[in-house]
Amino acid sequence: MLRIGVIGAGRMSRIHLENIMRHVPDADVVAVADTRLRAAEEAADQFRIPRALSDHGEILNDPTIQAVVICSPSPTHPQIIRESALAAKHIFCEKPIGFDLKAIDLALAAVEKAGVKLQIGFNRRFDANFHRVWKMVDAGKVGTPHVLRITSRDPEPPSPDYVRTWGGVFLETSIHDFDMARYIMGSEAVEIYAAGGVLVHTDFAASGDLDTVVITIRFANGAIGTIDNSYQAVYGYDQRLEVFGDAGMMRIENNTTDTHIHADTSGIHSAQPLYFFIERYQASYLAEMKEFVTAIQKDTQPLVGGVDGRASIVMALAARKSYDEHRIVQLDEFD
Amino acid sequence: MLRIGVIGAGRMSRIHLENIMRHVPDADVVAVADTRLRAAEEAADQFRIPRALSDHGEILNDPTIQAVVICSPSPTHPQIIRESALAAKHIFCEKPIGFDLKAIDLALAAVEKAGVKLQIGFNRRFDANFHRVWKMVDAGKVGTPHVLRITSRDPEPPSPDYVRTWGGVFLETSIHDFDMARYIMGSEAVEIYAAGGVLVHTDFAASGDLDTVVITIRFANGAIGTIDNSYQAVYGYDQRLEVFGDAGMMRIENNTTDTHIHADTSGIHSAQPLYFFIERYQASYLAEMKEFVTAIQKDTQPLVGGVDGRASIVMALAARKSYDEHRIVQLDEFD
Amino acid sequence: MLRIGVIGAGRMSRIHLENIMRHVPDADVVAVADTRLRAAEEAADQFRIPRALSDHGEILNDPTIQAVVICSPSPTHPQIIRESALAAKHIFCEKPIGFDLKAIDLALAAVEKAGVKLQIGFNRRFDANFHRVWKMVDAGKVGTPHVLRITSRDPEPPSPDYVRTWGGVFLETSIHDFDMARYIMGSEAVEIYAAGGVLVHTDFAASGDLDTVVITIRFANGAIGTIDNSYQAVYGYDQRLEVFGDAGMMRIENNTTDTHIHADTSGIHSAQPLYFFIERYQASYLAEMKEFVTAIQKDTQPLVGGVDGRASIVMALAARKSYDEHRIVQLDEFD
Amino acid sequence: MLRIGVIGAGRMSRIHLENIMRHVPDADVVAVADTRLRAAEEAADQFRIPRALSDHGEILNDPTIQAVVICSPSPTHPQIIRESALAAKHIFCEKPIGFDLKAIDLALAAVEKAGVKLQIGFNRRFDANFHRVWKMVDAGKVGTPHVLRITSRDPEPPSPDYVRTWGGVFLETSIHDFDMARYIMGSEAVEIYAAGGVLVHTDFAASGDLDTVVITIRFANGAIGTIDNSYQAVYGYDQRLEVFGDAGMMRIENNTTDTHIHADTSGIHSAQPLYFFIERYQASYLAEMKEFVTAIQKDTQPLVGGVDGRASIVMALAARKSYDEHRIVQLDEFD
Repeated sequence: MLRIGVIGAGRMSRIHLENIMRHVPDADVVAVADTRLRAAEEAADQFRIPRALSDHGEILNDPTIQAVVICSPSPTHPQIIRESALAAKHIFCEKPIGFDLKAIDLALAAVEKAGVKLQIGFNRRFDANFHRVWKMVDAGKVGTPHVLRITSRDPEPPSPDYVRTWGGVFLETSIHDFDMARYIMGSEAVEIYAAGGVLVHTDFAASGDLDTVVITIRFANGAIGTIDNSYQAVYGYDQRLEVFGDAGMMRIENNTTDTHIHADTSGIHSAQPLYFFIERYQASYLAEMKEFVTAIQKDTQPLVGGVDGRASIVMALAARKSYDEHRIVQLDEFD
Repeated sequence: MLRIGVIGAGRMSRIHLENIMRHVPDADVVAVADTRLRAAEEAADQFRIPRALSDHGEILNDPTIQAVVICSPSPTHPQIIRESALAAKHIFCEKPIGFDLKAIDLALAAVEKAGVKLQIGFNRRFDANFHRVWKMVDAGKVGTPHVLRITSRDPEPPSPDYVRTWGGVFLETSIHDFDMARYIMGSEAVEIYAAGGVLVHTDFAASGDLDTVVITIRFANGAIGTIDNSYQAVYGYDQRLEVFGDAGMMRIENNTTDTHIHADTSGIHSAQPLYFFIERYQASYLAEMKEFVTAIQKDTQPLVGGVDGRASIVMALAARKSYDEHRIVQLDEFD
Repeated sequence: MLRIGVIGAGRMSRIHLENIMRHVPDADVVAVADTRLRAAEEAADQFRIPRALSDHGEILNDPTIQAVVICSPSPTHPQIIRESALAAKHIFCEKPIGFDLKAIDLALAAVEKAGVKLQIGFNRRFDANFHRVWKMVDAGKVGTPHVLRITSRDPEPPSPDYVRTWGGVFLETSIHDFDMARYIMGSEAVEIYAAGGVLVHTDFAASGDLDTVVITIRFANGAIGTIDNSYQAVYGYDQRLEVFGDAGMMRIENNTTDTHIHADTSGIHSAQPLYFFIERYQASYLAEMKEFVTAIQKDTQPLVGGVDGRASIVMALAARKSYDEHRIVQLDEFD
Repeated sequence: MLRIGVIGAGRMSRIHLENIMRHVPDADVVAVADTRLRAAEEAADQFRIPRALSDHGEILNDPTIQAVVICSPSPTHPQIIRESALAAKHIFCEKPIGFDLKAIDLALAAVEKAGVKLQIGFNRRFDANFHRVWKMVDAGKVGTPHVLRITSRDPEPPSPDYVRTWGGVFLETSIHDFDMARYIMGSEAVEIYAAGGVLVHTDFAASGDLDTVVITIRFANGAIGTIDNSYQAVYGYDQRLEVFGDAGMMRIENNTTDTHIHADTSGIHSAQPLYFFIERYQASYLAEMKEFVTAIQKDTQPLVGGVDGRASIVMALAARKSYDEHRIVQLDEFD
């Protein structure tokens, strides 16, 4: 039985707690920590976890705990990864791996030195739709990929709660798409151009964030990709991807609440996409956690590691720089 | 905490055990019984159930057990329902409620006298697709229903294991569609015509069963329905329904493994239906069990009761009679 | 240049006139006849046809005319076919071939004796969708067919104009589906059961017609088919078909006005089916006429001949008898 | 009866000749000219046009001819437009309007001075799918547009014949998408970034052309659009568009050869897109020609005029410049 400590007791923490406690038979959460002790206590209470802590250090100091799941605010990730590695814990860290490349590099160095597992929470790699695309592209079903198109639109903007420690659209939202782009194309980005604006809510302008972006990526293999993100798709969470190559094309459509088709005098009507990530990616959150546990137990490499966490951050930083400086940015500017 | 005893340790029993033990927080299985004790023991072991029994009478005699889930072979259902009612247990019984109308009536009388809950395992009523159709038809979205079409095809025939106590296609397979037809149309069947044959495997002819049937139903409200069943849809479990009325039409398509679309020189290709009932109706099995527990706790009527179990059996018997006598059969012939 | 006389100047006549005059380069309509001379004159005027006649006999007596297209009221078809055969004209006759089997047999005998071509206007065989199904079923793509489902619903009932010489739903509407059923299954019907009612407009009850029917067909090869017809699908012309067999399934969906998909807060919305047969089957009307001209020019057999016209009528008569006598009808009752 | 002279006798000319001669009752082509006299003669022969010429000047000098349809090689368009305007002919000119902005401006000035109609052959505006998107966006069905995505991929590269006078991907292929982008968004482009490469055939590198491009457009209203073009979609002509706004999303799917769906053990298979522009846009070529004739007859403004022809060229030139100079290009650099 793998003994896990969970750091952070917010929304993502609840998802992982429920999955581990109910659906991962060979793992157990033995402590949950949050700087807001009350949140930790509530989570512990809900999922019958023996210890609720305000200091995650107690988890790291507990020699009976083998692994941590980090769900604290994004800016704290690199430091906690580093501490966890120093404490010889295996690490599952929510995306993004951090905002600061220097801190990320220190964290990755600590992980490598400690020889612990590090898995980043890019859950979409474990989703049936995206996995199918990856598998078929990898099997050559579209030939050599030429063009990638990702549409990834949220149904509603981040809540004010999140905006406090929110890294902005590129680092928090597009980051999933950056990882998916690399994963599907099997090639690294070399150049990024990001166009964007504040089209949904003028509030976002105040915080310096954008709510609508269209990103063009040039890959090392010559292929070109685009990502469009929006904070507000009123019809529901829009999660589509298309890869086009010299032997064909693959795309995935949204998952819907049901499959009904209704025809009346006004037209043909069908079901909406599942509302947001909690509904849409439920199964993938469980699958990634099982992967993490298996990687530890069987001493294998998790599907998505620290290198992936870092590479997506470089893409996000390049996108922000491209927008800020209104020019095409080379990724090697970040070497 | 509702204390439940499970009677029968076969395939459906495993589904209910997993759901109750893992996903229904306020219910607990405290005993499992099967005439094959070894099967009961294995199930008990797998789901950490304290007691494995060969005689379900011990469950009925245990005053701390409030409810039973009956997953024994179909022919035994009426007798066990009756015993359970006499023992004042609330009853969840897998479909079909039985094969013999007299025995069913005795069972229902016992249930009524005891004032216990009885829910029949017509899980499809709890499926998102079928529920959506029911809700929209009920809300008048197709106006007055005129025509109902159900396609319900299994990916593979029942295994030899099941055929031993198998009631044949009408009583075991079409039975779900009979219940759905009544539920969606909001009207009782008055007349049935069943055409069918042994088209898949000549084996079925030997046992007197049919593997392909097309059933026409006349409803009390004048509407007409057809059901087609097959034991072998090589492309996967095919579960569709369409209602047509004077204000429009509703239909549901299959749930698929994923939403990919692949285009190449040979055409456009997409994902297959989920393979069979275990994959396809997973969520509905949990939902029906939650309904059962809630009905007991809040003293409400389950969505699908003994009357529904009996009505679908009358339809199945009429269909068989129609096929055997090669004529249109009135349902009041069974009064 | 094939010289054609057209008999009848109603709605279907206009379709054929436009096709021959504008889109069949090697055929020409040189005369149009209608008992209502004014209608013939209007048609002649619109399509620049030299002669408008009230008596189709003048067409039959004209030795320069090689072929006739019969679009007169259905009951007159057999007599005009017979006269045309006697006059040694090749014959294209709109569906149905007639209502009376005796008259039809006389007509077919005359055709055979004269050695002229006879093509019946079952245009759907020339439609891209239905043709694709036929071709793939014929190529074994579904294996041995087991079940056929046809949905064929009109957007609105026949107008009072047509009802005057209207043969009722089975002979006028289902007739297309009967032909398609035989064509796709490659097997003759042996048994028919028709359920139906007056569910749309009580007017139809007065005329003895039905507006909603569900027909079950047993084929010689053991397969089973169902057809559902309605006079009023408020969402547009609903023309679908499905064949299920031991190696797979083929179905066709409706053709729509366009391919748009609109997503908003109320759901996902898409385009309606093309409104009615004029819009939906436009291309097939041209294709069948080209087939007719080619069959004459190259002395080949048209895809759909007199035998097909007769066989579909027997099915329609059996369906009516089944409804009237409320029983399963054998087709050999009509031998 | 509008008397038309057609200039050029290549592939597009044949499409327009067939449409005018067969399907536009109130227009007639009285002469066809091509510098390759033989091509003019063949076209005249095929469509029964009285005069075949090698010098289009004879058309311009014929006072009985009211309008010209220009299908000559793209580089000659501005000069012929100018000459036609000086000869007081109404002008339908195939896209693109030309390659050289100065020449285009001279042509447009001549048109304005002469007061003749000028319609550019952006036929997609007349296609049912694109028209539906425009209409619904114009009616506010997606609210304020934020993001536009156009996928426009040819099934095969331009033939060597065309490459001789071919303007390259931006001026010949993307040009349709540039026009559609302006039309749908109701806003002018202000900034363009084009990424691209030679991924299909190294031949294109030799000619300086690209076979794969992804273009990002910034519109005056703040919206952002992307276009992806390829010379080789092996699964057929891929013509899709999506507009996303604050009230919803609209998209169009490809038109297919038929609507069949085939399910077997290997998956679910459906029909491919119509192969190329001749099949796909057949109806729109006729509709644009009817618009042109109507605009002359009723003295109205054609839906797509010289300003539109010029604006799309500026976008194409900007895209090429962006690719060549590897930077974001402002459209006002071309003022």
